[in-house]
Amino acid sequence: MKEILAIGSIALDDVETPYGRRENAVGGSLIYFSYAASIFSKVALVGVVGKDFPQETLKDLEKRGCDLEGVEVKEGLSFRWAGVYRKGEEDPQTLRTQLGLFGSFQPEPPASYLKTKILYLGNLSPSLQLSLLKKIDHEIAAMDTMNHWIEGHRKELLALLEKVNILFINRREAEMLSGESGSVPACYKLLEMGPETVVVKRGESGAFLCSQRIVSALPAYPVREVVDPTGAGDSFAGGFLGALSRGEALSKALAVGIAVSSFTVEAFSVDRLSTVSKEEVEGRLRKLRAIVSF
Amino acid sequence: MKEILAIGSIALDDVETPYGRRENAVGGSLIYFSYAASIFSKVALVGVVGKDFPQETLKDLEKRGCDLEGVEVKEGLSFRWAGVYRKGEEDPQTLRTQLGLFGSFQPEPPASYLKTKILYLGNLSPSLQLSLLKKIDHEIAAMDTMNHWIEGHRKELLALLEKVNILFINRREAEMLSGESGSVPACYKLLEMGPETVVVKRGESGAFLCSQRIVSALPAYPVREVVDPTGAGDSFAGGFLGALSRGEALSKALAVGIAVSSFTVEAFSVDRLSTVSKEEVEGRLRKLRAIVSF
Repeated sequence: MKEILAIGSIALDDVETPYGRRENAVGGSLIYFSYAASIFSKVALVGVVGKDFPQETLKDLEKRGCDLEGVEVKEGLSFRWAGVYRKGEEDPQTLRTQLGLFGSFQPEPPASYLKTKILYLGNLSPSLQLSLLKKIDHEIAAMDTMNHWIEGHRKELLALLEKVNILFINRREAEMLSGESGSVPACYKLLEMGPETVVVKRGESGAFLCSQRIVSALPAYPVREVVDPTGAGDSFAGGFLGALSRGEALSKALAVGIAVSSFTVEAFSVDRLSTVSKEEVEGRLRKLRAIVSF
Repeated sequence: MKEILAIGSIALDDVETPYGRRENAVGGSLIYFSYAASIFSKVALVGVVGKDFPQETLKDLEKRGCDLEGVEVKEGLSFRWAGVYRKGEEDPQTLRTQLGLFGSFQPEPPASYLKTKILYLGNLSPSLQLSLLKKIDHEIAAMDTMNHWIEGHRKELLALLEKVNILFINRREAEMLSGESGSVPACYKLLEMGPETVVVKRGESGAFLCSQRIVSALPAYPVREVVDPTGAGDSFAGGFLGALSRGEALSKALAVGIAVSSFTVEAFSVDRLSTVSKEEVEGRLRKLRAIVSF
């Protein structure tokens, strides 16, 4: 049985922020998620990637205890995204998206992948997410989604929501999907739509979690120089589920997600995230606890 | 010596929100501030108001231990504001502003007002704020401001910033005044511009505080139905300074501000704020502590 099984995109990004620009940077939701979760736990990846993607990154993930049997390396181009984060704007402007091999991706998890403690369905079409959810025996299923699926694939998304345990979603998308205004009313409304736990990501303002049993909220860890926000949400989910797989409570998982993603944004790509130690996360958790104490 | 001396607007508001509408509602920064601060402390008010403003509200504040000697009640019209909060938008759309008597307001604090522990300079022209700051002997001076003064009276504002101890400011205005992007970099930048403590109000995401000595941040108390956001920021400042005047630490003052303003937004005008007890605030602080604990 796997500890965490995750599906998502593996990408090469061209990113520009007020701090500079990077081309062909290692990225994609699955890569950010896996670096974050593998600080705490073993991650089995399901994805597809072209030979243009640096093999060292895949080897590095294997060295961290990740299982890459489910990653197909094929002839052709990897998913590519190019975007600009402008000063004063929370969301990036997308300049280009080239789906490449990811466009026709039909996940075929290997036989060893059919059972997992935690299943993470990264941002993909709800029908692909649902087919994987059905194929893979799991204790906890978590998912992310985005405006594209909320607008164009609402019916499938609602069917999926009824089957997952944890929904990660950003504030704007939470409002869009729930029809409510404000992250708190949106969070509670989404809770009625199926998931046992809803986590609304609020960017630099942190995250809000509600479930039948608890309400938990934390500000973001204060980062003075957000060099590159790419992957913050994916590494938040990775830290969160990594902690959960170690038996931590939801409130602690939320804090770990926030601590891990605070490292991600301090550098381009996975430059900082890929070197974060458990001890460094603990250090940031201690500081976060001091910041919210009164 | 006064405990808290506050200056600001006393207004009648026409407010529309997704929960309904209210006309001639008691409002204005000074009224919200004073109701909040007087949960904990004695407040001396400096303001001007017309005879169209309900005298019961002024009497009610006196009953709470407020000193209204500095409030001029004059022939003429009170400051009036009309605005709409639309679903999904954090800021209201202003429909009308009629300055009335407030337009020519020249604060003349009575002799008994010349010394105070805490001086609160609500959102007024920086030159009026500065003249009051010079007239009134104080231990701690706190101020608020808004986009109008940042855009049109920057020089006076910068001079004032060098003389105050605490700046309350919302996220967008903090970015505008500092030239930084994000509430955390903006907060640190503003700290270099004079105040010992900067508190950035983040709306439904809470507040972030930085000073030379501490960093403190809390999410907003989760309110499921934000009936009317008017006065949230002013009652936050009132709760904050009320707690500070009782000798509480900055981190506790931040929490009290958040707890008090969570009541304000649960009803129109001061309907809920005006009935909040110290015990109710304590109850919400306990819940807030549970929400951020991990």
